[in-house]
Amino acid sequence: MTKTRVLTGITTTGTPHLGNYVGAIKPAIAASQDPSVQSYYFLADLHALIKCQDPRRIQESRLEIAATWLALGLDTDNAIFYRQSDIPEIPELTWMLSCVCAKGLMNRAHAYKAAVAENEAAGNQDPDKGITMGLFGYPVLMAADILMFNANRVPVGRDQIQHIEMARDIAGRYNHLYKGQYFTLPEAQVDERVEVLNGLDGRKMSKSYNNTIPLFVSEKKLLKLVRKIKTNSLEPGEPKDPETCTLFQIFSAFATVDQTAELRTEYANGIGWGEAKNRVFELLNEQLREPRERYQALMEDPGHIEQVLLKGAERARAEAAPLMESLRHAAGLGRFV
Amino acid sequence: MTKTRVLTGITTTGTPHLGNYVGAIKPAIAASQDPSVQSYYFLADLHALIKCQDPRRIQESRLEIAATWLALGLDTDNAIFYRQSDIPEIPELTWMLSCVCAKGLMNRAHAYKAAVAENEAAGNQDPDKGITMGLFGYPVLMAADILMFNANRVPVGRDQIQHIEMARDIAGRYNHLYKGQYFTLPEAQVDERVEVLNGLDGRKMSKSYNNTIPLFVSEKKLLKLVRKIKTNSLEPGEPKDPETCTLFQIFSAFATVDQTAELRTEYANGIGWGEAKNRVFELLNEQLREPRERYQALMEDPGHIEQVLLKGAERARAEAAPLMESLRHAAGLGRFV
Repeated sequence: MTKTRVLTGITTTGTPHLGNYVGAIKPAIAASQDPSVQSYYFLADLHALIKCQDPRRIQESRLEIAATWLALGLDTDNAIFYRQSDIPEIPELTWMLSCVCAKGLMNRAHAYKAAVAENEAAGNQDPDKGITMGLFGYPVLMAADILMFNANRVPVGRDQIQHIEMARDIAGRYNHLYKGQYFTLPEAQVDERVEVLNGLDGRKMSKSYNNTIPLFVSEKKLLKLVRKIKTNSLEPGEPKDPETCTLFQIFSAFATVDQTAELRTEYANGIGWGEAKNRVFELLNEQLREPRERYQALMEDPGHIEQVLLKGAERARAEAAPLMESLRHAAGLGRFV
Repeated sequence: MTKTRVLTGITTTGTPHLGNYVGAIKPAIAASQDPSVQSYYFLADLHALIKCQDPRRIQESRLEIAATWLALGLDTDNAIFYRQSDIPEIPELTWMLSCVCAKGLMNRAHAYKAAVAENEAAGNQDPDKGITMGLFGYPVLMAADILMFNANRVPVGRDQIQHIEMARDIAGRYNHLYKGQYFTLPEAQVDERVEVLNGLDGRKMSKSYNNTIPLFVSEKKLLKLVRKIKTNSLEPGEPKDPETCTLFQIFSAFATVDQTAELRTEYANGIGWGEAKNRVFELLNEQLREPRERYQALMEDPGHIEQVLLKGAERARAEAAPLMESLRHAAGLGRFV
């Protein structure tokens, strides 16, 4: 049986938070246990360079993300878990794809167009002001990430569908020009049911809003952050609406159906915000305690994480190197004997 | 004493001809024997992909160019002679440079602007029609070629000066952003005295004009090609002008000062074109006979060329790998331990 190949990249500029866990990490780890799937997870650290020129931030983020995924039980015997920058075949493939990729395709990329629109709105004479070749060409790197491992499916948000279409376009053109089936055409897998968590201020939880609850802070810090979650001014005893409540949303993302139903009743009965916050803290803390301990232990043993990632890179390169060899040969860059 | 580092790339899409020899190969081989210089020569086969999607042509060209340089006496113990595609650090560096290189810089590249102008002249609605990301971004790859080996000087034609300026610009920006002297700023070395040979039809000898005399054709073929060189219709006995004569130009590029003076006298005395062509053929054949034999032997032993290039790649990577390691570290992509 041929396994479906599913590939996910994680940009290494932030510290994993509750929103990442619920929306991406938890479903990904569950999916990686599906025996009909071969999963590829990678730390997209070459992508990180596009928006972050703070080396310490990137280095920390790479370590935190790796430790998080491992602490939460990613099965690295099954899934292939690697750092993008450990796979030299990826930038090499990026160049080869560049040579068949129309510049016009990149002109139409959403992220680039948004940056140009921002410049125009700000009255900048140069519409490309502040835009690097990395930002402009990043869909080609993303195509290389995907095509290198002949991924069948790439789980993405709506905003990323275009990049998968571009990867398909580039793959098709390459197969045509070099007369072979070098690349599988990947498909975007958009899960409409992906849970989005709100953050401390009630907006979507996101590093850019500075409203996140990191996944593995200390118990004390977690309590402090939960207490900061914005609520309305209803008094204890007054009935509260769970549907518009960030606290309730976070709770139910972690709770069983029964636990959620129970809290819903207490909202109707007028639970006080302080008490509701305690409930949320207790639930989170109970579920995060063990992985947090594993996370702390991993963070104190970067040598172990390094070994896990190098082993992942070895497995990834065992696939990437032969493909690259055949691509070189097909393009006239093969060995002479 | 620190040696000056001089770097030269040779795009692998053509067969070396007399014009290449006189204008580039001969001075480069002479320069490589200078003990105060560390020379880097590479087959720019990743660049070749930009304009050539014919694998057989690229593969042949790579072999022919390597055999030519070796047959003409390139000292590969002294010079470092390698294939660009054997150095995975180069595309990796290309990506890292992309992330600090303004897109606006590439918008202003001559080659790109010329392609856009051509589209506009042809009335194409899309000014980027037919332009790939490879063509658009190739000055970044060229910067990586140069900066990877901290080249001090890059011998180029006038049309390439801008690319060296771009490499300087990117290097300076990288050093600034990552707070270190990672890269040497390269200088263009424009030799105004470079000899340009004309081809069979009197225009500049160039593959694109299809008017070349390949360096290592058989004796019979060489004679046939020399006989095809365009002359005017002056009869034997009529004095001829050496200054406007392709035959004379080719002769003097290979001849000693005395031999050139001698032929000049014979032009004044009205030498016939047939006789002049015999003189050119004899001089060329005499000088090319031995290297031609070495060339033929090399072409029949691609395994030997492969070994020479792999050894060159090993030496090149012994410099590229530690630099890349320090760049990764400085950008936050280092190992965890």
